[in-house]
Amino acid sequence: MIFVTDLEGVLIPEIWVEIADKTGIPELRLTTHEVEDFETLMAARIKALAAHGLKLADVARIAQDVMPFAGSIEFLSWLRRKGPILVVSDTFTELADEIIMRLGGYPLFANRFETDGGGRIVGYKLRIRGQKDRMIVSLKDIGYHLVAIGDGFNDLSMLKIAHHPILFNPSPQLSAKLPGQPAVRDYVELKKHIEQILRANKNDMA
Amino acid sequence: MIFVTDLEGVLIPEIWVEIADKTGIPELRLTTHEVEDFETLMAARIKALAAHGLKLADVARIAQDVMPFAGSIEFLSWLRRKGPILVVSDTFTELADEIIMRLGGYPLFANRFETDGGGRIVGYKLRIRGQKDRMIVSLKDIGYHLVAIGDGFNDLSMLKIAHHPILFNPSPQLSAKLPGQPAVRDYVELKKHIEQILRANKNDMA
Repeated sequence: MIFVTDLEGVLIPEIWVEIADKTGIPELRLTTHEVEDFETLMAARIKALAAHGLKLADVARIAQDVMPFAGSIEFLSWLRRKGPILVVSDTFTELADEIIMRLGGYPLFANRFETDGGGRIVGYKLRIRGQKDRMIVSLKDIGYHLVAIGDGFNDLSMLKIAHHPILFNPSPQLSAKLPGQPAVRDYVELKKHIEQILRANKNDMA
Repeated sequence: MIFVTDLEGVLIPEIWVEIADKTGIPELRLTTHEVEDFETLMAARIKALAAHGLKLADVARIAQDVMPFAGSIEFLSWLRRKGPILVVSDTFTELADEIIMRLGGYPLFANRFETDGGGRIVGYKLRIRGQKDRMIVSLKDIGYHLVAIGDGFNDLSMLKIAHHPILFNPSPQLSAKLPGQPAVRDYVELKKHIEQILRANKNDMA
């Protein structure tokens, strides 16, 4: 059994919403929940940051103060006893690394920013989006039973690949795409559901 | 940048040597360093355990007391700041899980035992051997720069796939197979070498 989980919305709040609040730039509040097209969304974010003279270090400083959801660290400690945990997210390593260390240092598979000589964000490398599926499929090929946890539309393909998709407080768009799949509202329900999966797969655990 | 490391010989002592010492069964001292063929080695181990009436729980109890090498926990904490860490090993999850938690809970990709109703080891599932390469290749495909750390002949293919193979106190067989590749003797040298790699790849980090 291996666990692949999204970050924002499942373990921590949306980082860009926090950045919007702290910087007072309302355009930064939009997430993949509102704007499905990631490229459009990121272009708008980079433009807004440039317009306000904000550099990567500025937003990274705000991001590193984002607090995990209450109970998420304990949930992950519990989950790690059941199998390896991978955090797969459309976020950026530079924004999420400190939070990931706070969560327990699990491996984070995310994108990276590109900056100019002055530390301004000029672009990004999409290491994850569109490519994470290959890694997840290869874990399945090795013979692992895959449990995936996600909340948003951008987790759809990961959830579809997994043997056991779990929707965590899913957005309406995501629920519409995966009708009948288990959805949970909090870590208590999530643990219960994972325990059920573990019991059902006791004789076939990877 | 992503780090894939072997477990035994790099971060902790050989688990089976510890089991041999504690049980007093000399046949259990052999490792992949002496017997290249893993199937032959495992068949001998399972036979020896059965002959002495030892169950999985007995050897797991011994294994969970294996102490990590001095400095390995600190090394991993340092390394995690540089990128995700995956521990890929020919060992067994049932033997290594407690030690992995002690090391920091990094994901362990290893094999699993098969037991009968009485808890006796009757076989094993080779989730990793021969298949781990696919996962490692897929990480490369995503665009990660791969640093691999290994000490034994069984790490050869992983080291060959990696952009940056590092031999940690390598066995003579392994050194012979990878002539001219960097070898280090301790965590101080290992850190230095990784810092060199990071500097050289600063502009192309995943």
